[in-house]
Amino acid sequence: MTLSPAPTLPPVDLSARLADRARRMNASAIREILKVTQQPDVISFAGGLPAPELFPIEDVRRATDTVLTKYGPAALQYSTTEGHPPLREWIATRAGITPANVQIVTGSQQGLDLLGKVLINEGDVVLVESPTYLGALQSFQPYGPRYVQLPTDDHGIDTDALEDVLRANPAKLLYAIPNFQNPTGRTLSLVRRRRLLELTAQYGVLVIEDDPYGKLRFRGEELPGLYDLALEMVGGDPERSHVIYSSSFSKTLVPGLRDAWVQAARPIIGKLVQAKQGADLHTPTLNQMIVTELVHDVLPRQIEVVKRAYGERAQDMVARLREYFPEGVSFTTPEGGMFLWVTLPEGIDTTPLLAKAVERKVAFVPGSPFFALGGGENTMRLSYSSATPEQIDTGIRALAGTIREALG
Amino acid sequence: MTLSPAPTLPPVDLSARLADRARRMNASAIREILKVTQQPDVISFAGGLPAPELFPIEDVRRATDTVLTKYGPAALQYSTTEGHPPLREWIATRAGITPANVQIVTGSQQGLDLLGKVLINEGDVVLVESPTYLGALQSFQPYGPRYVQLPTDDHGIDTDALEDVLRANPAKLLYAIPNFQNPTGRTLSLVRRRRLLELTAQYGVLVIEDDPYGKLRFRGEELPGLYDLALEMVGGDPERSHVIYSSSFSKTLVPGLRDAWVQAARPIIGKLVQAKQGADLHTPTLNQMIVTELVHDVLPRQIEVVKRAYGERAQDMVARLREYFPEGVSFTTPEGGMFLWVTLPEGIDTTPLLAKAVERKVAFVPGSPFFALGGGENTMRLSYSSATPEQIDTGIRALAGTIREALG
Repeated sequence: MTLSPAPTLPPVDLSARLADRARRMNASAIREILKVTQQPDVISFAGGLPAPELFPIEDVRRATDTVLTKYGPAALQYSTTEGHPPLREWIATRAGITPANVQIVTGSQQGLDLLGKVLINEGDVVLVESPTYLGALQSFQPYGPRYVQLPTDDHGIDTDALEDVLRANPAKLLYAIPNFQNPTGRTLSLVRRRRLLELTAQYGVLVIEDDPYGKLRFRGEELPGLYDLALEMVGGDPERSHVIYSSSFSKTLVPGLRDAWVQAARPIIGKLVQAKQGADLHTPTLNQMIVTELVHDVLPRQIEVVKRAYGERAQDMVARLREYFPEGVSFTTPEGGMFLWVTLPEGIDTTPLLAKAVERKVAFVPGSPFFALGGGENTMRLSYSSATPEQIDTGIRALAGTIREALG
Repeated sequence: MTLSPAPTLPPVDLSARLADRARRMNASAIREILKVTQQPDVISFAGGLPAPELFPIEDVRRATDTVLTKYGPAALQYSTTEGHPPLREWIATRAGITPANVQIVTGSQQGLDLLGKVLINEGDVVLVESPTYLGALQSFQPYGPRYVQLPTDDHGIDTDALEDVLRANPAKLLYAIPNFQNPTGRTLSLVRRRRLLELTAQYGVLVIEDDPYGKLRFRGEELPGLYDLALEMVGGDPERSHVIYSSSFSKTLVPGLRDAWVQAARPIIGKLVQAKQGADLHTPTLNQMIVTELVHDVLPRQIEVVKRAYGERAQDMVARLREYFPEGVSFTTPEGGMFLWVTLPEGIDTTPLLAKAVERKVAFVPGSPFFALGGGENTMRLSYSSATPEQIDTGIRALAGTIREALG
């Protein structure tokens, strides 16, 4: 084909055409930090990655083979927005609700984004733990929330403080991670769970319970989740609950398939379905079918494997922290999940400390980005999920050295 | 664990807590229609489904096996938001751009949603073809665009009319499907492609070129896409182009893996990365790796297979339309893709006609929902992609009967 000589197009200022909400988005501080710490000789407690050596690769292979043999064309075809019916059914049965209360999403992150999309008007007050999961802040941010931070202690959200906040702020939404919270590893006590539900219902505030780690308890007694408690407190009717539950197969099975779900009353799920239709039509069919093959046998076995490994690693890291860390440094002792939280004496800023730590070949995540409104400069998050005993020993020793140096 | 007697929680009005943008979302009209037409004895030309009997199931199985063997832990782990580097590299090389100009997304639909999120302010004027792809309207809708419809004819957007519209409206964005458009099957002529690029650049309007079907031309001469033409018109520098390109492996390979991509200048891609981080972190790793295994050998072969089949089916359907349809009914004769468009005499409404057609065991999609601002009541979309010759013969004959009856 012969084209006539091409004229030059006048330039268009692309950045000037961005939406206002795009200006509110920022690169994740953590993501930028992780790039720095990905040198192969650095021991990294920074990432929040599940241990890849525990992945049930052979089971995934076998499940894929089964799915493609049994349901080949359907597994590779478009499917329904709500999700693969047998997977929704399995989730619903386990939770004592109906499949109509379940929406499959592409990773918990998508659940949070879609919830932000259907719930948050610009300026709506969203209550968050202090600190909270950075990714949730990122999901909600484009929708223009006004964050109010809830004070927390070693038992999670301080519910007395919550009552004061609710009195003072017309909040729409409370976002909480009650089990082995990211980033602190803390767990909300049972008494506070009940109180949080009473208070939020009383003030008409929706609760998003983000629970990626709930099944990974390696110590202590299991506590009922906010969603389960609320369900009990409204007589078992999911339509009367003001709690929206979000969980995932990323931490219990594998993250790379991106299979997660949201449980909620139908008016919420109905809007999530519409939002998801516009957002990605549906979560990949093949991946949902693979997970469905694995939930009955592999998932429970895998949860035991992961719990045991993370429990040993957590115990190990806590022991090394006790052994090597100087006086005046405190840390949480998680009962599950992947993270613990270190608080240094006031006046020490962990962001410049990271550069010093990387010189000593160890990395962590500074705590400050986990605070919606700033603060926590003297804190850091450590992940033990994918570290060997040797790495924990060498890494924590190096980190202790860095901290001692900073303390003078 | 013994719990104290559960108090009853006060009810929370969930629907009252929805965001305003949730009220703008609606269930897809087509989706509701499809439910009606999914009776097994109905011949459906309604769906927009690729032919599942052509899916390269064995190739997908082999690719999955290879990926899990070679990259097991990485394939099931979290990965980068931008996408699997070898896949971005392959796309970039083919387009004559850099991987930094490519963002992998979970289906084209996600590309459209993220573009809406980073580009559309409430009230921004978005120019769309009349009719246009319903799914794009759904993706953009939550961000509050003001749609302006562009007149079209058998050669696509009328660029003389476009100039008038640009003069009268401060538009931000033009959304177009130049090849074998969904829903009409029409293709924008080369002369108009150039003119559209000149006009939009002159008026500072970004162009989204949605091109899921471009590789599926089964008749006529290949035309350069808007993105490629614009690149040529700005001397090959992707940073100077005002065109954003969206395409997918859904129609050429399989839809169920949900692998698609966006090409654009870095200021746009940079914001898409941030938006995608909040939206779902990344597209499933396994799926991207599977597609990467397939692009070199299976994809080109598969494109030939699909083109041949769809070409035959289109020819067949057009022949039956000529044979059975009454005078006064016109239809497009597509040169590629999956759809053709039927226009009935004015005054006939295809929405009630659908119920009559389903009585005769044949289904189509009424055209009206494809118009952003309404209209087209006398039109319908027919898909030939997954129909056998027998289904086409029986179905078009039954549809002709329904139309004759309506014509009186």
